[in-house]
Amino acid sequence: MTQTLLIRNIRPAPARGQITNVLIRDGYIASIGASADNEAEQIDGKGALLLPGLVDSHTHLDKTLWGMGWHKHSAGPSLTDRIENERRIRREVGIDPDRQSGRQVAQALKMGTTHIRSHVDVDTEVGLAGIEGVMAMRERLKAVIDVEIVAFPQSGLMIRPGTADLLDRALACGAEVVGGLDPCAVDRDPKGHLDTIFGLAQKYSRPLDIHLHEPGEMGVFSMELIIERTRALGLQGKVTISHGFCLGMPDVTRGRQLIADLAKERIAVMTTGPAGWPAPPVKHCVEAGVVVCGGSDGIRDSWNPYGNGDMLERAMLIGLRNNFRRDEEIELALDLCSYGGAKIMGLDKYGLAVGCAADLVLVPAETLAEAVVSRPANRSVIKRGRVVVRNGALTAPEA
Amino acid sequence: MTQTLLIRNIRPAPARGQITNVLIRDGYIASIGASADNEAEQIDGKGALLLPGLVDSHTHLDKTLWGMGWHKHSAGPSLTDRIENERRIRREVGIDPDRQSGRQVAQALKMGTTHIRSHVDVDTEVGLAGIEGVMAMRERLKAVIDVEIVAFPQSGLMIRPGTADLLDRALACGAEVVGGLDPCAVDRDPKGHLDTIFGLAQKYSRPLDIHLHEPGEMGVFSMELIIERTRALGLQGKVTISHGFCLGMPDVTRGRQLIADLAKERIAVMTTGPAGWPAPPVKHCVEAGVVVCGGSDGIRDSWNPYGNGDMLERAMLIGLRNNFRRDEEIELALDLCSYGGAKIMGLDKYGLAVGCAADLVLVPAETLAEAVVSRPANRSVIKRGRVVVRNGALTAPEA
Repeated sequence: MTQTLLIRNIRPAPARGQITNVLIRDGYIASIGASADNEAEQIDGKGALLLPGLVDSHTHLDKTLWGMGWHKHSAGPSLTDRIENERRIRREVGIDPDRQSGRQVAQALKMGTTHIRSHVDVDTEVGLAGIEGVMAMRERLKAVIDVEIVAFPQSGLMIRPGTADLLDRALACGAEVVGGLDPCAVDRDPKGHLDTIFGLAQKYSRPLDIHLHEPGEMGVFSMELIIERTRALGLQGKVTISHGFCLGMPDVTRGRQLIADLAKERIAVMTTGPAGWPAPPVKHCVEAGVVVCGGSDGIRDSWNPYGNGDMLERAMLIGLRNNFRRDEEIELALDLCSYGGAKIMGLDKYGLAVGCAADLVLVPAETLAEAVVSRPANRSVIKRGRVVVRNGALTAPEA
Repeated sequence: MTQTLLIRNIRPAPARGQITNVLIRDGYIASIGASADNEAEQIDGKGALLLPGLVDSHTHLDKTLWGMGWHKHSAGPSLTDRIENERRIRREVGIDPDRQSGRQVAQALKMGTTHIRSHVDVDTEVGLAGIEGVMAMRERLKAVIDVEIVAFPQSGLMIRPGTADLLDRALACGAEVVGGLDPCAVDRDPKGHLDTIFGLAQKYSRPLDIHLHEPGEMGVFSMELIIERTRALGLQGKVTISHGFCLGMPDVTRGRQLIADLAKERIAVMTTGPAGWPAPPVKHCVEAGVVVCGGSDGIRDSWNPYGNGDMLERAMLIGLRNNFRRDEEIELALDLCSYGGAKIMGLDKYGLAVGCAADLVLVPAETLAEAVVSRPANRSVIKRGRVVVRNGALTAPEA
């Protein structure tokens, strides 16, 4: 049976035009400018902006503490301190990846996120429990969210024997993307680390998404190794570098050349817009042809007390980080949190054109820039053609 | 007649103790741990955290576009571009400082701000119209907000003859604080600029608050000149440097010594926690004995499209900028937006002790750190012992 929904009185982004109606049929946009005289179920947008569903390109669904009360943060400042602290908290409080990932998804959905790429820890302590938990959640919530899983060696790969086999099994059982982490700084063996994860990508014909926190010339070196392998293996368009702090560091001598090389091999960059850390220069990357996407990173977990899964707020933080003040700059920040993420996730029916998937968010704001700076709470969200959030309240019973 | 209010079921910050009741009498805290069996008007805090009212130490009430619809931002990147752009917009859209400052105050009040230090433009084009407008607003809203006015030479002082006389008149007619702006970079005459504003501070026995955006060693030089004059004139505890970006710049050779010198002369520093710009290192400044306070800066004006007057969000941004993750670090960021601001405004009855002014905010959060990261909207606010905001909605008819 045909399922229809008429979204009335909305202004499709970037909203340079008039108020209109959008007809959804069987989960796809069937027409823009449809008559309001229609038998379909209707939702009144009351003049809201219509945006494609927001995309969180980088989070860690398996380990959020969302909804578990407040946990005091007391970890030391180093990466190793934090990895150890996390393992301790995970043992102590018992984070159920199925339940917790579902809680974060419900929160993200309320904020208008319809697609999430989540890194999920794989290590010799948790094994595949995180992967299995997030896979169970996504089966349970498949009607309301699309989740892509990155098998992520958070605790190291070469330094933790057995992890490569676990990654292999994670990919065999349903994780879509091969993860990686600081091949020099954490794993102490950049060649071994990258050969392993690129080998898995080849074996399973999967994309890669590599955490790269490494500073300065060490980060540049790792990036060069990633670029070389992407070129040699013909993986253009299949590799994302997450964080890539070194691209924003002033002591990096070949930053602009490196960005050009990333563009040439179609390697994407994910940024959270970190306020306290060097970050890839978004505008320069985009102008050079690099796909840039935005992510929340961890939300209320043992690494990071901040975050609420709101990709409009993320766009604001990316805008603030990059000194974006002009409207078109703020729109670019939002683009990272929608179209940029859709590109790395390979969503070919993403957008507001006829034929696109009806994954949409209605935001009561005058312009895209205003949506980003004001971040109104009373959004409505449509997923697969169904209203799943109305005026900020979940209406999908499963979420 | 005695006015009383009983605030029931709250946890006074930092909330290490039990739920209690606080009795307010005639605008001051009369007792903590009062019996609920009381004839006073009551408000049920439902277990919320009780904080002293938040303090915005630096904003520009006279020129917000809040409530005037969305204005496209298109100014160029330089300081001069933005000053010129602002003067153009002010002419074109007609910003009424009385009405607009009132709109921002109402928004800030909803977010729990009970005290504001506002810079107000004084120049040869607007004359004293901004000062008069904000003074009219504060007379109108005196029951719900405390506003301190800085007479601020936004368009320059030495480069714009006539401005010094206008500043003098602003101070004579009710502005409490002498403002200044980039003595080198904007005004091109650091000695002339600083001698003029310190002269006005002496003449009227008033504190100073000087915008200092100047980078690197130029900023250090201006800071040295400010320190010298503070020492020579015995103005310890009366001078604030706003922004002070140079304190966070890596090319500054004497940063730590400079911070020690600021502490010695009791010169305070105001920061917004700018994500895209070097910023004073908050923790180091506080540990060195410098009073640091937090401010919104401009909100939705021709300079800055961002901002919502929420000092919990400001604390979050300051926390993110300073890589604060531990609870006590996030509490420090919040301290800047409460006690830090109270110090520069000289509020001697600020706080949660018996005898303190009953300027309070109730935030539904488990801990101070959670209040900062979650920024719940349903706060209640008490000003001068009266409930002026209840669950996020203004109840004071004048605001």
